[in-house]
Order: sequence, then structure tokens, then C-alpha cells
Amino acid sequence: MTLTAEELARFDEEGYLFFPGCFSLEEAAVLKAHADQVYAMDREEVWREASGVARTAFAAHTYDEAHRRLGRHPRLIEPVMQLVDGPVYMHQYKINAKAAFDGEVWQWHQDYGTWKRDDGMPEPRAMNIAVFLDDVTAANGPLLFIPGSHKQGVLEAGHDLETTSYPLWTLDRDTVTHLAERGGCVAPTGPAGSMLMFSSLLVHASPPNISPLGRTIVYLSLCHVDNHIRRFKRAEWIAHRDFTAIEPLADDCLRDLVATRSAAA
Amino acid sequence: MTLTAEELARFDEEGYLFFPGCFSLEEAAVLKAHADQVYAMDREEVWREASGVARTAFAAHTYDEAHRRLGRHPRLIEPVMQLVDGPVYMHQYKINAKAAFDGEVWQWHQDYGTWKRDDGMPEPRAMNIAVFLDDVTAANGPLLFIPGSHKQGVLEAGHDLETTSYPLWTLDRDTVTHLAERGGCVAPTGPAGSMLMFSSLLVHASPPNISPLGRTIVYLSLCHVDNHIRRFKRAEWIAHRDFTAIEPLADDCLRDLVATRSAAA
Repeated sequence: MTLTAEELARFDEEGYLFFPGCFSLEEAAVLKAHADQVYAMDREEVWREASGVARTAFAAHTYDEAHRRLGRHPRLIEPVMQLVDGPVYMHQYKINAKAAFDGEVWQWHQDYGTWKRDDGMPEPRAMNIAVFLDDVTAANGPLLFIPGSHKQGVLEAGHDLETTSYPLWTLDRDTVTHLAERGGCVAPTGPAGSMLMFSSLLVHASPPNISPLGRTIVYLSLCHVDNHIRRFKRAEWIAHRDFTAIEPLADDCLRDLVATRSAAA
Repeated sequence: MTLTAEELARFDEEGYLFFPGCFSLEEAAVLKAHADQVYAMDREEVWREASGVARTAFAAHTYDEAHRRLGRHPRLIEPVMQLVDGPVYMHQYKINAKAAFDGEVWQWHQDYGTWKRDDGMPEPRAMNIAVFLDDVTAANGPLLFIPGSHKQGVLEAGHDLETTSYPLWTLDRDTVTHLAERGGCVAPTGPAGSMLMFSSLLVHASPPNISPLGRTIVYLSLCHVDNHIRRFKRAEWIAHRDFTAIEPLADDCLRDLVATRSAAA
């Protein structure tokens, strides 16, 4: 998978690219089934909402086979290598469940803001990827982006330790309003298997999920190997310290698991 | 405006109809400007969020000229007369602002549940209309519907006096989940001026608005004149007691105000 000149120009302009149906429904279903197994585990990497339901499972690519493969998938790794112009390592891998009824808000933030302040990552030479494991609709708490906001560099932020169960460097309302006056506010929605690729500087958020439908998304944060983090304040399963360049697997690496799963059913 | 056989069949099946761009952007802008004037008023009909921003203005059709006209607009009144098979009166008229950042949730409910329990409305021979005064997107707290849920009659509900500043008879999660397994969960989105018409039995909700974009919607609740309420527990500006049949105005009734506004600008 190679990004076209048009896609590169659009990424530069808006700070994200959206690929609906990047993975097949069968591939998404395998990843979802494995995510459910991960959520059922009693591990420190699995964080829960106030209500007890799973909110985030960190580092599943290190202890689950389907997610190990997704973490090395060429449809994700290759375009990011193209965008950051070189080999990448996995800075963070998380499976975020915005549970039906209970899924909480993520306030407005830039991921690189946290990586710089908490992890000492030198430059925003890093990218985020979101892979939808459920259909993401207007109803179940989609990601909200402010297009073009990645061009503003690192914005001033406050450390929010109160709104939700996950500490986050969040932006104030005036900043978000000002950015949206220029770029608007979009919510890319699409079927399970869709993929979003976005700048680590892009300002984003997601609303609570009050719908009866769950909404699970896998996030990969990929960083150029030369740009690895320098500060080890957070747990190594949140901000990884293995800076080995990822070798992409074959494009059909998840299809094996689909076949295995179908045979077992 | 007359509903076609296909539209009638779809309404029967799903419990709602969506008309994107039913009103022009100019008509929507006039109504929005008048809504802002209404919100600035210090009146008991204007309810506010915990933060102080306006949440709901009731009965603006009785004290604002643009909203007086919308309350008698043929594009709204005529199809509802067709659906309830006879003349209608205005049971409730409200302008709901889901303010940027602050707009709160409306939990899952049926409007007729409240009208029956609180107002003694004999039958669900009444309809809701939503007119979008802003663009409604996946980002700014769209209405969520469970298609087909209007066929279940009045569902058991609890009186929620705590979640938000407006008391509401709300449904439990198991009920909502069960209904969504059959009908799914949709969020009709469209430009300012779009119109939704939905059964007073349709199960609906709307999420908080965490986006930097406001989202104002006018709701008309129209009831067959023979089916008027029998109980006067709520203020008359919330549950109206004037059961006079509405005579629709001409289709261009808002265009006069658009012209006046343009001339003044």
C-alpha cells in the first residue's frame, strides 16, 4: 500500500486520511473476537471505566496473536513509513472500547502533546492509526477531528486528571473554537475494518457513547526509530521502550486467522 | 406538501421521515437569529444548563414572530394532519440548544410516555417535528433514533429527575438494547433547514455536544384536537391548553422575514 501524491497532499492539508473498508469484515471480526478475549483478562494493561467495563487494553500486540499481526500489518506500517520517511517502531498500541451506554468522553487533545511532555519524544515525527473493529456511526461516539489543526505545532494544554479515568493533556475551549472556525469539525464514520491515519499533532476528541451499540477501535502510535522517546516516566506497556524497527508481515497475515477461526466454528 | 404512499409506508415501518433541506438556508438563518434573541430573554420559558447557557426555550411561537410562523408552517402542519388524519393543535413548542462543549445528554425516552403520564393525553395520536437551525452532524450531538421502536406502545419508564436539568421519563438499558437489536440505531444528519418528523412513540435520545459547534433544533409536538390533554400538572407554556386547530399559513410565510432581514442588513 503506497500513498498517492493526491493522498499525500490531502494529508498535508487536513492532517488525516480515511480508508473505509481497509480491512475486510472478516479480518475486523477476528480482531474484535481477540479484543474481547483481551478485555476478559485480568491484567494491569486492561483499564476500566468507573462502571467496571473495559475502556482501554494496552500493548495487546505483545500478548495476543491477532493483534501481534495487526501491529506489523503492511497496510498500516508501510504508509506510515512513507509519511515519516523511514523505519518506525511501536510507541503505543491500545484497544479502546467505547462501551454501549458507558463509554466515556475523551477531551480535546493532541497525542504528541502527551508524548513530548510525558515521554520526551523529540519531534512529532510519529503517526496515529485507528482501525475500527465495530461500525463507527454518528450514534456511537465517533472520533472528532479538527482538520488542519496539525499545522499549529504543540498547543498549550492543561493536565486533566479529573474528567475521566485516563490522565490527558487537554486543550482549552477558546483554542478548540478558534481552530474549528478555520478548519471545521468532522467525524469520519464507516464500517468495521475502516482505517484512519492521523498526525500526532491533529487536535481530536470523542464524545461519550450513549447508544446501545459498542464501539471498539485499535490505535497504533508509530514513531520514526530515530525519534524514540527519551524519558521513561510512564509504564513500558503504555509508552514502549523497544525501539526496534517493525518489519511488515505479508498482506494476508490476518487471513490465516480468519481461515482458522472459520474452520473451528 | 403531501406525503406519498411510499413515505407513509416508510413512516409506518420506521416511525420517522427525514427531509434534508426542507427549509432553505435563508429561512433557517432567520429562525436561528430569532432563536438567539429568544435565548437572550430573561423569561421563565427559557431553561438553562448547569453552566448557565440556554438549553430550552418553550413556547416561542407565542412571543416571537418567526417562530409564530414556523408553528403554522404548511410544510410541517399539513403532513402531520395527514398522518393523524385531522386537525392538530400545538401541544408543545421548544427550541433546544445543544450548546458547544456544554450541551447535555437527553436520555433514551418516548415523548408520548411523558404526555400520557404527566399530561393525560389519551392516545399517541400526536407527532413530533424537528427543524434543524444549525447543520446537524455526527460531531455535535445528533438525535438518535431506534427505527421501529414506535410499534411497541408505551414502554415502562422511570422518572429521571437527576441526570439533567429537565425531568424525563426514561427507559432502561435492557429495553433500549433489546429494541436496537431489532431496529438498529440511527442518527439522521443534514444541513440547517432539514426536517425530521417522528412518532411520539419512537424511542430516541441525544448525546452531549462536546464539539465547538452549536446545535439548535426546534421541536413541534402536534396533537389531534380530539386527543387534547386532560391533566394540567405542567405549566401551560410547557404543555399547552389552547386546543384550537392550527390553520396553516402560506408556504412563503418565512420568506417575508428573510426579505425584511436582508433589507435591514
